[in-house]
Order: sequence, then structure tokens, then C-alpha cells
Amino acid sequence: MANALVSQSGGPTGVINASLVGVIEQTKKHSKIDKLYGAIHAVRGIIDGNFIDLTSLSSDILEKVAASPSAALGSSRDKPDKEYCEKVLAVFKKMDIQYFFYIGGNDSANTCHIINNMAKESGYDLKAFHVPKTVDNDLRVTDHCPGYGTAARFVACALMGDDLDNRALPGVKIDVIMGRDAGWLTAATTLGQQRDDDGPHLVYLPERPIKIEDMVKQIQEVYDRLGRCVVAVSEGIRDADNVLWAKRIKEDAEVDAHGNVQLSGSGALADFLAEKIKAGTGIGRVRADTFGYLQRSFAGLQSPTDAAEARRCGQEAVKLSETKQSGSVTMQRTGDGDNYAIDYICTDLGNVAEHTKPLLDEYINAAGNGVTEAFRKYATPLVGDLPQTHYLGTYPKV
Amino acid sequence: MANALVSQSGGPTGVINASLVGVIEQTKKHSKIDKLYGAIHAVRGIIDGNFIDLTSLSSDILEKVAASPSAALGSSRDKPDKEYCEKVLAVFKKMDIQYFFYIGGNDSANTCHIINNMAKESGYDLKAFHVPKTVDNDLRVTDHCPGYGTAARFVACALMGDDLDNRALPGVKIDVIMGRDAGWLTAATTLGQQRDDDGPHLVYLPERPIKIEDMVKQIQEVYDRLGRCVVAVSEGIRDADNVLWAKRIKEDAEVDAHGNVQLSGSGALADFLAEKIKAGTGIGRVRADTFGYLQRSFAGLQSPTDAAEARRCGQEAVKLSETKQSGSVTMQRTGDGDNYAIDYICTDLGNVAEHTKPLLDEYINAAGNGVTEAFRKYATPLVGDLPQTHYLGTYPKV
Repeated sequence: MANALVSQSGGPTGVINASLVGVIEQTKKHSKIDKLYGAIHAVRGIIDGNFIDLTSLSSDILEKVAASPSAALGSSRDKPDKEYCEKVLAVFKKMDIQYFFYIGGNDSANTCHIINNMAKESGYDLKAFHVPKTVDNDLRVTDHCPGYGTAARFVACALMGDDLDNRALPGVKIDVIMGRDAGWLTAATTLGQQRDDDGPHLVYLPERPIKIEDMVKQIQEVYDRLGRCVVAVSEGIRDADNVLWAKRIKEDAEVDAHGNVQLSGSGALADFLAEKIKAGTGIGRVRADTFGYLQRSFAGLQSPTDAAEARRCGQEAVKLSETKQSGSVTMQRTGDGDNYAIDYICTDLGNVAEHTKPLLDEYINAAGNGVTEAFRKYATPLVGDLPQTHYLGTYPKV
Repeated sequence: MANALVSQSGGPTGVINASLVGVIEQTKKHSKIDKLYGAIHAVRGIIDGNFIDLTSLSSDILEKVAASPSAALGSSRDKPDKEYCEKVLAVFKKMDIQYFFYIGGNDSANTCHIINNMAKESGYDLKAFHVPKTVDNDLRVTDHCPGYGTAARFVACALMGDDLDNRALPGVKIDVIMGRDAGWLTAATTLGQQRDDDGPHLVYLPERPIKIEDMVKQIQEVYDRLGRCVVAVSEGIRDADNVLWAKRIKEDAEVDAHGNVQLSGSGALADFLAEKIKAGTGIGRVRADTFGYLQRSFAGLQSPTDAAEARRCGQEAVKLSETKQSGSVTMQRTGDGDNYAIDYICTDLGNVAEHTKPLLDEYINAAGNGVTEAFRKYATPLVGDLPQTHYLGTYPKV
């Protein structure tokens, strides 16, 4: 018998707590795990000795946790170096923690990987498993990431409503969507489209750098055709020379511990685009919203599929630890449409660590400003049923 | 027998279509109404002759319309003057429209009032009724406005999630909320609070002008106490001398046809506040989101109470037209808590036109930076059941 530790890292999602609950409930069934600790604020909590005992939470509390957005154990943006990881391993040894479940993105998989290698080198029997999460959907190997379906549901519902709003009061509307390096979430803004002329009419992705003048021209074309234009833009959109627009706008942009420019939590990119479009087109009504943290943390809006899969990923990590030494839980799609189904398999931590997966070429249209039917087929099962809407203004006139 | 006309005006809401459907279904039961026309884009559609026939829509379509956010007939920001209203009346006469149902805010009530007076003066038998709608909840006479409960539900769920996000990754988070002249919607950000230290910890309202230095000081105090601070700020927040901060930031701000400064659809105020707070406190992690149009047009997130009341208001307007000449539908609360109930009564158009109702003094705390228990009691029945959440990080440490 030994102890286990779970924690949550990086940007929260709408279902990262479902994964946590999956770990908690499966740990109870694990024959060799005694206590399960939760580290508060991820690796920071481990080295600070900030733990809670998760062994005996009631099922009522667990269900409430599973339904809550954000990370119930707290999170951290710390990116541990070798020395930091050595401290973590020292705590594991001291507390007899031989099972480590780390819920996070590619940086967290990397941390898990480093600690796992250190344990091996020092002859300490640690089972280290990474449970995937990210609204960005940019982890490698896995078909998709827990957290994506719920964020995708949010932006799909948001664009459905925003497009109807733009029909009622026509003009140009820009919506800036999360996704620093990959356009997966921005692409999901299209998933609620029901009519031929439903927005977003243009979708700009980090994978397709574009000059501002070209964007303005494309918006003008849609506006001339439909009398309005709804645009989804990734916060990670890049100029033709591949420099982040957000960086160009704000050269002194705040940089986080991972060396990334702060994109969310600021309306600067949206306002910049609105100004450029106003100036470049002469269209009077141009509005821009930045969806910000709502996309990852809105209460009461989980995709049921995403919530179930996230929980299962947590459970699978614990199951894997019965027979394997380390790895990352990944989802493999075995059926689509009505036969949509997922197999849960294990991949090496190194396969998921560090690098990310951009939106696939086959999911981006030839013009580089929209998605393909293949993307719709891929993403539709992940968001759950979407609301149906109806608009009357386009009916034949009297 | 004569014809009727309905249209929707001003900023859309999540349930203005429920009111439209209420009008449509009740019109079918009206013994003296022949055809029901919908004017596309409000008064603009009337003078442009842009109508659709709403007499024979299927109940399947009507239910989809009722569930859809935004204005299914389109809206307009035109503020008709006397000449404009004369054109409207001429169209009414030409098309034998003797029943006019206008769904909108105080400006729309005013338009309805003017046209009604003109009809009287010219001896034309027009029944003119205003159906209230606004996310701002600032119409006079009525207990609350259809549209408010749904927008309030959105901001309550948003703040529940955002507060949990801020627990996970602590810092200062500013959320800028709609409401040009009244703090009703900003106050509703508090409705999801479940724990003593749940945010928003500070609420800034148009009704309580404040110096930026005082706001920074209050945020620093909360941050020192809790290690984090979530702040809800109305877009209509004013400096100590009662000038809109949004105006002060952007003296050349776009002004709409009603002489109002553009507040939504821009992140400028949020970013300005974040900069001021960073500079004034030295706190590293300060983020700001502007909720923008999501608050009024998110698909699939109606408050059930609000949707039912909005529909009923539409029905009541048609019922009133059987016995009265003109008026605005208002809601009068006859019970609270578990006995929450509403009576629908008629008030003169002039009582609702033009002027607005600020958030009541009794709903604002003594410090001017939060709400009272009386506000919670008032607003809780309007938003429907909110999700329950749970956070583990505050449990006793191991």
C-alpha cells in the first residue's frame, strides 16, 4: 500500500473537475492505494506542503465538484525546472506518494514526464500519469481533449445568438476567441450554423496568417453580399510574417512564466480590429467582443459528452496505474455520427509533452477563412445537442 | 375587422421573441383582428413597406422563435421624430392597421405614445400597445422587465464560473457588464453567490459615481484580505463628477442616434480599469473581460420565468386591445419567495415613455460597492434555478 496524489494545472476548463472526480472515485477501487491527496494549486501546492485529503468525500460533494467549472483544487502557471521537480520528488518520497495523477495540458504532461524520469533515475517506484485537459484541443496523439467540447459548446451557442443579434441590428461583428497557437476553438464557432447565411461568415485562425488589408477586403465582400458580417477571430491570429497581431499591437504585452504573450483578459485585439475595419470599409456599425474567460469557466454549460469523457479519462489514468508505470490517457475515435465511440488508450508521456497539434489542414477551407465539412463531422459529437433557433425577418415579404 | 401590426425595437434580448409569439398566438383569438403583419426592422420596416404575414405560422415554428434569442423580426435604432411618425401613421391607414403592438424599451414606448396621439388627433381609430423589454430592467412602473431575468441569469452564471476561475488562478478580475444608466444587470452578477467569500467582491454601479483612486483602494483591501478580488463594473460607471468613464477614456466615442455614447462592443473601459489597477496596486495578475453582446443574445440560456412572463406580456397586450385604446403592459408583484406571483396590468404609455428607473437605493449597500439582501430577494425569482458549484481548495489542509 502507498499513497496517491492528484492535482490540476494550467488554465481551468468546464470539465477538469469531472476528471478530478474520475480519479477520486477510481482510486477508491484501487487495491494498492491507501490515501489520496489533492495538492492545492498544482506543483506549487506540492512543494509548499498544501494538501487536502480526498479519500472520503461524499458522493453529493463529488457530483457538485464534477459539475463545477474551473479547477476545484486550484491551479498554477508555474513551469517547474529540474530543481523544482527535485523538490516535488522529495515531497513524494517523504509522504510515501507512489501514484501521481496530473490533470493538465502539454506543459503538465512535460512536468509529469520530468518527474517520472527523475524518479526512475533515483530508483523510486513512482507511477506517473497525465490526464489530458485543454479548451485549446491542441494535445498530440489524442483524438480530442477533455475541456474542448464544453468550450466549443459555449462558443457555438454564443455565435448562434450573436449571429441572430447581428441579423436584428446589422453591421460587422468581430468575436475574438481563445486559442493561442491552434484554431480548434475558433473553428467551433461554426457548429451552430443552421441556415445558409448563418454566421460566422469568416473564420480567422492562427494556422493561416493574414494581412489586415486582406481581412478587411474579405469582410467588405461579405457585407456587400449579405448586408452584414459576423467574424470569428482567434486571439492567436498572425500577420502575414507570422507575428502575433496581439504582440504587434502591444509590444510591451505582459508575458507569462511560459514566455507567452497575454492574449485573454484584454479587449485590445478586438478593438484594434474594429478600428481597422471601420477605417478600411466605411461601414458604420462595427462592434467587437472578446469572449475571454467565459469560454472556459461558465457555470452550468457542460457538454454532456465532454463531461462524461473527462470523468472517464480520470478513471482510466487510475486503472492504467494498476498495470503500467507511466503514460498519458488518450482518446481514440472508433466510430462516428450515430456510432460515435471512444477507446481510451495509453501513450508515452513524451508523446504528449511540450509540442502541440494545430488545427488540421483538412479542417480549414481552401481560402483559409472558414472550416470544412470534415471539421463539422469531427467536432459535432463533442459539443452535445445545440439549441434550435428560428428567424422570421428573411421570410418572403408581404 | 381590421389588421394588426407587431414589431420589435431597440437592443434585442433573450426573450423578446417570446413576447412576439405571445402577441401572435393571442391575436388568433382576437375577434376583431383579421391579418397580423410583422414589420421587419421596427419602424424602419413600416415606412419602407417591409412586412411579413404572421397570421398562419405553424406552432412548431412559433416555439422555435420563442426559444430563440434576438429579435426575429429584426430591430432598429431609429428614433422617429414627428415627420417619421406621420409616415408610420399613413402606412397604418393605407393598410387598415388599427392594432399596433410595439415590443421595446422606453424609447419604443415613446414612439408608440407619439403615434397614438397623432392617430387620436387625426381621428383614426388606432389601438396602440407597448410590450416591455430590456435587459437593463430600467422601465418605470413595472416591477421588472422581460429580458432582464435572462440577462441576469447569464451574468450570474458567468460570475459563478469566473469567481471559481479566479480561485484557481488568483488575482484581480474585472468584468464589465451592460447597463448604460442603471445598475440592475451589474447587481445581478451577485445572484449565484453560495459561499461567504464568493465573488464578485465589489460591484460598481452607475448610481454611485466613484473616483478611480477609491476603486483601486477598495480592490487592494479585498486582495489583501482574500488574496484575490473579482469586480463587477457597469459599463455606465461614472467618475465622481458624474461623467461616464467610458466617455472620458474616449472623448471621440461613437454616438448613436439617441445621442448615447457607444459602450458595448468595445473592451476599452475594461482595459483602462485593468491598467489603472495594475499601476495603482502592483498586483501582478489583473485581467478584464467585457461581456458585451453575449449578455443579451446567448442561445439556449433563457430564464424559464422570464420566458414565460415575456410571452404573457405579449398575450396581455392583445387582450388589453379588446377593451382599451392604448397602454403599456406592466407587471405587478403580488407575492414573493415561494409565493412569487405577477399580476399583469395596463399603464398609460406616457408613464413608461422616455424616462428610466435607476437601481433602487434600498438595493445598494451603504458603501456603494455592493448589493443588499433586499435586492437578492427581489431578483432571485427572476433568473430561475442556478447551478450549484463546489470548490475544494478551501477545505482544511492535511
